[in-house]
Amino acid sequence: MIRPNERRTNQLRTTKIKQGFSKHAAGSVIIESGDTVVLCSAMVEEKVPPFLKGTNNGWVTAEYSLLPSSTDTRSQREVNRGKVSGRTSEIQRLIGRSLRAVVDMEALGERTVWIDCDVLQADGGTRTASVTGAFVAMYLAFKDLKEKDILQEIPITDYVAATSVGIVEGVPVLDLEYVEDSEAQVDMNVVMTSKGEFIEVQGTAEGKPYSKDELQQLLNLAESGIIELIKMQKSFLGE
Amino acid sequence: MIRPNERRTNQLRTTKIKQGFSKHAAGSVIIESGDTVVLCSAMVEEKVPPFLKGTNNGWVTAEYSLLPSSTDTRSQREVNRGKVSGRTSEIQRLIGRSLRAVVDMEALGERTVWIDCDVLQADGGTRTASVTGAFVAMYLAFKDLKEKDILQEIPITDYVAATSVGIVEGVPVLDLEYVEDSEAQVDMNVVMTSKGEFIEVQGTAEGKPYSKDELQQLLNLAESGIIELIKMQKSFLGE
Amino acid sequence: MIRPNERRTNQLRTTKIKQGFSKHAAGSVIIESGDTVVLCSAMVEEKVPPFLKGTNNGWVTAEYSLLPSSTDTRSQREVNRGKVSGRTSEIQRLIGRSLRAVVDMEALGERTVWIDCDVLQADGGTRTASVTGAFVAMYLAFKDLKEKDILQEIPITDYVAATSVGIVEGVPVLDLEYVEDSEAQVDMNVVMTSKGEFIEVQGTAEGKPYSKDELQQLLNLAESGIIELIKMQKSFLGE
Amino acid sequence: MIRPNERRTNQLRTTKIKQGFSKHAAGSVIIESGDTVVLCSAMVEEKVPPFLKGTNNGWVTAEYSLLPSSTDTRSQREVNRGKVSGRTSEIQRLIGRSLRAVVDMEALGERTVWIDCDVLQADGGTRTASVTGAFVAMYLAFKDLKEKDILQEIPITDYVAATSVGIVEGVPVLDLEYVEDSEAQVDMNVVMTSKGEFIEVQGTAEGKPYSKDELQQLLNLAESGIIELIKMQKSFLGE
Amino acid sequence: MIRPNERRTNQLRTTKIKQGFSKHAAGSVIIESGDTVVLCSAMVEEKVPPFLKGTNNGWVTAEYSLLPSSTDTRSQREVNRGKVSGRTSEIQRLIGRSLRAVVDMEALGERTVWIDCDVLQADGGTRTASVTGAFVAMYLAFKDLKEKDILQEIPITDYVAATSVGIVEGVPVLDLEYVEDSEAQVDMNVVMTSKGEFIEVQGTAEGKPYSKDELQQLLNLAESGIIELIKMQKSFLGE
Amino acid sequence: MIRPNERRTNQLRTTKIKQGFSKHAAGSVIIESGDTVVLCSAMVEEKVPPFLKGTNNGWVTAEYSLLPSSTDTRSQREVNRGKVSGRTSEIQRLIGRSLRAVVDMEALGERTVWIDCDVLQADGGTRTASVTGAFVAMYLAFKDLKEKDILQEIPITDYVAATSVGIVEGVPVLDLEYVEDSEAQVDMNVVMTSKGEFIEVQGTAEGKPYSKDELQQLLNLAESGIIELIKMQKSFLGE
Repeated sequence: MIRPNERRTNQLRTTKIKQGFSKHAAGSVIIESGDTVVLCSAMVEEKVPPFLKGTNNGWVTAEYSLLPSSTDTRSQREVNRGKVSGRTSEIQRLIGRSLRAVVDMEALGERTVWIDCDVLQADGGTRTASVTGAFVAMYLAFKDLKEKDILQEIPITDYVAATSVGIVEGVPVLDLEYVEDSEAQVDMNVVMTSKGEFIEVQGTAEGKPYSKDELQQLLNLAESGIIELIKMQKSFLGE
Repeated sequence: MIRPNERRTNQLRTTKIKQGFSKHAAGSVIIESGDTVVLCSAMVEEKVPPFLKGTNNGWVTAEYSLLPSSTDTRSQREVNRGKVSGRTSEIQRLIGRSLRAVVDMEALGERTVWIDCDVLQADGGTRTASVTGAFVAMYLAFKDLKEKDILQEIPITDYVAATSVGIVEGVPVLDLEYVEDSEAQVDMNVVMTSKGEFIEVQGTAEGKPYSKDELQQLLNLAESGIIELIKMQKSFLGE
Repeated sequence: MIRPNERRTNQLRTTKIKQGFSKHAAGSVIIESGDTVVLCSAMVEEKVPPFLKGTNNGWVTAEYSLLPSSTDTRSQREVNRGKVSGRTSEIQRLIGRSLRAVVDMEALGERTVWIDCDVLQADGGTRTASVTGAFVAMYLAFKDLKEKDILQEIPITDYVAATSVGIVEGVPVLDLEYVEDSEAQVDMNVVMTSKGEFIEVQGTAEGKPYSKDELQQLLNLAESGIIELIKMQKSFLGE
Repeated sequence: MIRPNERRTNQLRTTKIKQGFSKHAAGSVIIESGDTVVLCSAMVEEKVPPFLKGTNNGWVTAEYSLLPSSTDTRSQREVNRGKVSGRTSEIQRLIGRSLRAVVDMEALGERTVWIDCDVLQADGGTRTASVTGAFVAMYLAFKDLKEKDILQEIPITDYVAATSVGIVEGVPVLDLEYVEDSEAQVDMNVVMTSKGEFIEVQGTAEGKPYSKDELQQLLNLAESGIIELIKMQKSFLGE
Repeated sequence: MIRPNERRTNQLRTTKIKQGFSKHAAGSVIIESGDTVVLCSAMVEEKVPPFLKGTNNGWVTAEYSLLPSSTDTRSQREVNRGKVSGRTSEIQRLIGRSLRAVVDMEALGERTVWIDCDVLQADGGTRTASVTGAFVAMYLAFKDLKEKDILQEIPITDYVAATSVGIVEGVPVLDLEYVEDSEAQVDMNVVMTSKGEFIEVQGTAEGKPYSKDELQQLLNLAESGIIELIKMQKSFLGE
Repeated sequence: MIRPNERRTNQLRTTKIKQGFSKHAAGSVIIESGDTVVLCSAMVEEKVPPFLKGTNNGWVTAEYSLLPSSTDTRSQREVNRGKVSGRTSEIQRLIGRSLRAVVDMEALGERTVWIDCDVLQADGGTRTASVTGAFVAMYLAFKDLKEKDILQEIPITDYVAATSVGIVEGVPVLDLEYVEDSEAQVDMNVVMTSKGEFIEVQGTAEGKPYSKDELQQLLNLAESGIIELIKMQKSFLGE
């Protein structure tokens, strides 16, 4: 099996994290993972959902959308169907959970971080790129709150990043692009901290079931990729 | 840590598979897993979604719902919100994927199996009980098609069942009931075949991230539970 | 005209009222009327709709749903259409009105009884079975409130039950099952108290108009059936 | 008990049927029943709903709406809630059923009559005024089809009209206006043919149940009112 | 080019303003502009939208609807699509803006005027007829508030009326009816005060772009028409 | 009155047209107008809406959206309200009309151009920037079709661009940014061709009505701006 651009099985696509749009959002980055491009923003609102009122705890919530022109065949806007699709809903929940797992909600206090991941161009791995980029946007927003003396510390307990792995033509590979993803036998998304611990593992057999051995190989590939991604996050953030 | 009813950490709740309502549905079972009770039905429609027309392949799709009175605090009917929630959508997709993974769509031919999982009483683990029960309902519907000479063989490639595992008070346990689930640090749903291969692994850190070791222990617990569940399926089906 | 199973024109189908699911709902029964099976639950909420706030009066409201697998051809879930159908809405309003007519709202106090009627299997007469079963579920919920010393008395003024009558092949008959209902010339639902007074009469000519005489015969049939049903309610409730 | 304007218990309000708007609708009338004013239109479409295609039978369907300014407190437009209310849905179904009961669908042929009842001013009895006016609008549309030689005969089997009756302060009365309706103990809508046969009887106890005797008195009042209304229909139609 | 009924290019259709329905709405008029007939109502509510609470300023908002039978081919009710169309939304916003431009919101105080424009028969120019009629209905509602001593003065700063102009077969004409409108090359709606100042100019090239000269001619035609319309408003209002 | 950044009253903001995302969309540009940034894409579909089938004519349609993070206070995604707002609908219609006015639909043939304008950062004038950018994206898509020999010529009859003008503190100014727009007394959007002819003029008095003189000055300002914008379009397109 030869990957597109002769990538090695354990090689990430060229990945870049760039400054996004700064006029309105406290944190805004554009993450490019090969041809996948996602605009990730974080905006802070000084209130929390009803179930948290009076608890002194904050909240992080995420929304995700594919721009219509981001996909090969134009994607219909979900507003025209009147509701988000099951796929979008799943991704939004994944991003939100992944970020909340590393935020100290008490240190954040009663405020909500709104994360928006808008896919400007899609080529596979948009949900994992969203997690990786959204963490950076959220970090920037926290920095902004700290600079304004609203927070005393950046209220996070660890870094978090995500990547996809999968089995294509029988071979476990890291960071699938669209042409690989669409014919993968197993598709797995892994969210990890800088300590190498799992926040989320979601592995689905699309074609045929996978063994424990295969699962192990996929998790190892994911770990190596995520270590690299967290390095990029730290480098962008200057930490 | 002592579990409710002094269950052992690797012990399933009392689980029963019973005949459901037979007037209209080809396959209908009620699965009880402790106090969780789900009505699983399978109905066959002699057509397929547009993307499969003319392919000689069949389809399996699933819907899931909590009856309003199934939960401690009454659940609002989703029709009154105008759309299914993200949680429902995720569960529906999980059940559908899990069953499709073991169906030979070409042997099924151009027909759709509609799976309905309606939770009559909820006490944790409704989605995994749904997968386990839905497989049996689908099998019954296939048997019915075979008895009517519409199918020559039961078009499945393996048995499939599911269970939840998690880490509660630091201890990995099998088959969480609601009081355990609501305070679990890790929550994982595992769907497996009778050959011990994975169809789906979904593990989420609710409180703190989990290590590779913990992941391994959870998967072992899940496997032991699923082996038992598949025995019950075979026994109910008389195979 | 010979009825299915050689039922007499004034004979109810075999009807049973059974205990439902007791973990979460204060009142829960399953009513079987021939092959029609409805799960009726009553849950109490300690608040009332806005128009009743501060009036010291309670409220009773009902929802109704056909499970997709309850009908011969699978019924689409209404959530997927985004709203309840006209038929469902009519039935929900009928059940709510019928129960409210015998509840002493002042004695109930500022709380709401939520009635849920979920049809597990449908064979005609689901709305009238729902009224009959829902009354029992509500009664059980009131008993529970009384046992907890929240209410001093069961706040009802009378028993209420319902049945359908109709004209099939020119003959007035009691308690139509689906095959009869679908070709009835007149279809009538009657809700009555134990004193033989009407709460609701809804008679529709499906094929040809009906005379005053025919109306009279239908009402007499309905009364005889409802007397029997109220006996069953009292027997189940041990009163 | 003294009725508003000293009406007798068996006296209709001043009722007028007038020509409506003729530029686009084949049949259009305005019916005034006291201060209740409804614009009833009938438009014919040369196709039928899917379930009637190829059957050589026609269809009649009705829609109903309160103009926002027709009620004392402005009624919110239902489009802003995204769906029709249960009340509107019930009324639409009642009007449609009432008209279909007197149409010879085979003589109509594969075409649909769309009935629109838009309440310009509401003062009680809007649904029964709608039935009475809609019949006339439909008749005019049939006449138009006959004049154009599309139909050979007016495809109706009888005239149909409707009125409300009820028990107010213990007294059975005919044709309730809003102030009466809002405090009636029993509220009943009756749809009848010119032969004195019933198409629909819907009687609801709002306050306390009603006896068989009271039911009989209400039906007699309704009959006398409907006989008068059908005379007005015939007079307007010049038949 | 000869206009229908040999109207001159600068001639309005026969226009009449009549009293509407007075039982519930403080202000209600029917405006006829040729075969276009619109019922315009104004109702006052003693509260304002959230963004105006505590500001001592009032609000004017408008809704618009085509009755299904008002158009040549029956218009589907928007409630059945679940939302207002883009066209309806545009018109509602235009009417609201036009009226707000001449209301002294401080003099009105914290109350909302709800304007409803329901088109009973459509033949082009329904939005401009709505503006012209709605102003009169609003004025009547203000008069009513003044008579009740709720307002000291009619809180308007000027009269406002509207008309359409357009280029048909190369010729600029005033007040287009439907057959003209449907083939106009330019379609323009103009809203003006009695002082000849603009509140709104909306000119769209449907077929080919228009020059500055043509724009000038259209505005002149509009002005002459609006002067006439404001005369009719004043005459109806007796001012 | 001094404008932000001391802009002259007849001076456009710094405006740039850049290449957008090229993997999937035939035409994609990013237009920056000061701090307003819009991604404009054009994708071609080889079919037309039903009303154009068989006519040999093409279609151009546009959609517009504000990204949640594009505004100072986060904008709620419209999908979560279930429908597009009136404002969005108006803008979408304006963009579509403006482009259709310069496309030769017969030369385009039976295909649809989908225009998507997604606002990445908003600072006033997003709808006019969208028109200006969308024209370029559409042109690029046409070029692509021509290069693929699907079209023989670029099927446009003229260039089109748009800008906003308004009266701020009594002074007519060109190309309003948000702080100006929010306090403008008159707000006008003008769409023009390279020949100086109008496609659309929409001028609204927000505060007080405007005179014919003021209208004239605004149109002159708009013309001067649009001439510059069309130069930029031509320069970017290399024509």
